[in-house]
Amino acid sequence: MTMELLGDRWSFVVLRDIMFGGWTRFRELLDNSLEGIASNVLASRLAKLTDAGLLTRNAVEGHRQKIDYFLTEPAIQLVPLIVELGDWGSRWLPTSNELAVRARLLADGGPQMAERFMGELRAIHLDGSPRPDDGVLTELDTAYREAQRT
Amino acid sequence: MTMELLGDRWSFVVLRDIMFGGWTRFRELLDNSLEGIASNVLASRLAKLTDAGLLTRNAVEGHRQKIDYFLTEPAIQLVPLIVELGDWGSRWLPTSNELAVRARLLADGGPQMAERFMGELRAIHLDGSPRPDDGVLTELDTAYREAQRT
Repeated sequence: MTMELLGDRWSFVVLRDIMFGGWTRFRELLDNSLEGIASNVLASRLAKLTDAGLLTRNAVEGHRQKIDYFLTEPAIQLVPLIVELGDWGSRWLPTSNELAVRARLLADGGPQMAERFMGELRAIHLDGSPRPDDGVLTELDTAYREAQRT
Repeated sequence: MTMELLGDRWSFVVLRDIMFGGWTRFRELLDNSLEGIASNVLASRLAKLTDAGLLTRNAVEGHRQKIDYFLTEPAIQLVPLIVELGDWGSRWLPTSNELAVRARLLADGGPQMAERFMGELRAIHLDGSPRPDDGVLTELDTAYREAQRT
């Protein structure tokens, strides 16, 4: 059952982009998609993930048309699974260095880093706090950008 | 990429049945499939998993037509990922108690139990040892059968 929910490639990609990219709006997700997701596919996967209880829809204050998509607690608890996925993929599948670097950094950080990351995601997505400058997301971004330059 | 390989529901089910059920032959996998896999689907997924390097085909000695499918090292290293999958699914998705009990037992056992399970799988699938009577597979089976009775 878990695989039926998460095994859909595009659902997983959308969830990953919200989790690691920090994008919460339709436009941001569309424009920043590494895989070039089509807008109808993005719309259907956001609806599917919301129905499955992995995302919540929040109207942005003062913008009746704008919606923020936030991760729910079950979605945040997928972090250890996504770390394992990235770790396994970076070891056994051909993958570009830039993409593997975040997976490796998270895997090497062990359960402690995963816990810290989940705490940060809870603050951002459940409590509406701004993204901290010195958190795990920033560490991952820095490592990713350094890898791109080499 | 990992999700494209593992995200296919039937591939995952076949891998799980070889890993936890201990079945290595086409007939066994067909007859013992909880989900009632069709024989053409089973054949295509065994071929796909073999091509991907997750299974090896071994002719059974003295039976030219019989093939054993064994897990490879990359497949065995999926154990932590499968534990996380089962753990998450047992917490957040509706699932029968019998099916969740193995997932919970493995998750509660932590990295040590996962390591012990991987060692057991290596002995069986890579070295051709018989399945031990006092190993993790037996523990999981016992817990599963007890859950079925209650």
